[in-house]
Amino acid sequence: MERAIGVIDSGVGGLTVAHELMRQLPKEELIYVGDTKRCPYGTRSKEEVRKFTWEMVDFLLTKNIKTLVVACNTATAFTLVDLQEKLPIPVIGVIQPGARAAIKSTVTNEVGVIGTDGTIRSHAYEYALKSIKTDIEVESLACPMFVPMIEKGILSGEQADDIIEDSLQLMKGNLQMDTLILGCTHYPLIEAAIQQVIGEHITIVSSSEETAREASTILDVHQLLYLGNRIPTHQFYATGDLRLFKKISESIFNETDDVYTVNSEQISID
Amino acid sequence: MERAIGVIDSGVGGLTVAHELMRQLPKEELIYVGDTKRCPYGTRSKEEVRKFTWEMVDFLLTKNIKTLVVACNTATAFTLVDLQEKLPIPVIGVIQPGARAAIKSTVTNEVGVIGTDGTIRSHAYEYALKSIKTDIEVESLACPMFVPMIEKGILSGEQADDIIEDSLQLMKGNLQMDTLILGCTHYPLIEAAIQQVIGEHITIVSSSEETAREASTILDVHQLLYLGNRIPTHQFYATGDLRLFKKISESIFNETDDVYTVNSEQISID
Repeated sequence: MERAIGVIDSGVGGLTVAHELMRQLPKEELIYVGDTKRCPYGTRSKEEVRKFTWEMVDFLLTKNIKTLVVACNTATAFTLVDLQEKLPIPVIGVIQPGARAAIKSTVTNEVGVIGTDGTIRSHAYEYALKSIKTDIEVESLACPMFVPMIEKGILSGEQADDIIEDSLQLMKGNLQMDTLILGCTHYPLIEAAIQQVIGEHITIVSSSEETAREASTILDVHQLLYLGNRIPTHQFYATGDLRLFKKISESIFNETDDVYTVNSEQISID
Repeated sequence: MERAIGVIDSGVGGLTVAHELMRQLPKEELIYVGDTKRCPYGTRSKEEVRKFTWEMVDFLLTKNIKTLVVACNTATAFTLVDLQEKLPIPVIGVIQPGARAAIKSTVTNEVGVIGTDGTIRSHAYEYALKSIKTDIEVESLACPMFVPMIEKGILSGEQADDIIEDSLQLMKGNLQMDTLILGCTHYPLIEAAIQQVIGEHITIVSSSEETAREASTILDVHQLLYLGNRIPTHQFYATGDLRLFKKISESIFNETDDVYTVNSEQISID
């Protein structure tokens, strides 16, 4: 199946999902749209997030994608069911994969979730976790400082450490919790610092990594995997300035030595 | 969706998959068939394995199952494609989930697989791994002593340690390998001993745990998850004597404090 996988995000956070897709499905081609012009989505209304998401989806549908990955937790929380009902292709969100991985991981039956205001307010993780495992304990915490910090390119150093330490303070007292879901695709970019603050005894579940894993499963079930051999070409589109987008891409993709071609372009979709 | 998940295995190994299904999907009901009378399958011909597998499947189809989990690597290697083509319900094998989890886990791009003679001879893991990631290095090793030992109830102690040490000797020299797939559903019963012999630096992927994770994904995608609240009742059937079956079940299920009812019965299917 030679068609590409479509990936949408509010900005650069979904690049961590794209990176995992490239790592776990190295023969697949991606077409990514990041709505960097209107990022972050976490503080926007449900209606705005829906409108912006559909604009990205309409753009990707013209590219004949074979599946859609909604690589943004806020967009998943507000639009997944609607997209799954209306699109003729499989639609994969980032919330259910993270929830399932946390259920697999936890021994104490108590998990934490950190995310944007929008994701935490939606209770989407809590619902996803409890619909499968009724008695699981969930502690949720909004970390509204993380996305703006990451979108500015601040991924480490004293300023980052201080913000992460302050933001997670409330969660550190929970001694039962053994698993923490990074409920925002930006957060894997600061995962090492989060692990250090929250403690090595906590298993961190990256919704980016788990979403790529489930995309692999779902493409397989629908017989949509590309089974030939090729060097893939990926297309990255951003609605805003490309400079920051490229800077963050480089920090995500630079450690890989896989072979592929990347084309980046600025587009207008609104 | 109130119908049960069907699980088949050559004997007691699939109980590790059943246990993971009960842990990760605690509201779902299982109907398990273990062909303990004709176990092990690992040394049998493709034709025999196919015939025995279909006998278990035909029995489960009379129970109106909503999905089938082939919880035996040998049966997956020899019958999965046939079952997926012919059954009107989703069919989940144990090989692809383990392969995908190993691809997610490996950093060195070199993974080991241990399994029965039949599974290793089938090259099913190698095919599953390389069809997704062409350049992945795979070292496979048949461990024909493990299943007979486990089916005798020998799960720890000096005799078990000696057999495991001897069997894995050939693999221990591989310094590139960072991930080891337990390519047999019996092996999680001796996972601690395997981890000790192979070294703590190796990430062990349990096909049982990963299969339950993917069953959760696939039931969700097909809108087959049970979303109500109930205390599930599980049915366990064995074609052979129930005494050993019960002994092994107890060693797998005793650490859980979840609430459910289990009925066991000996049946004849051939």
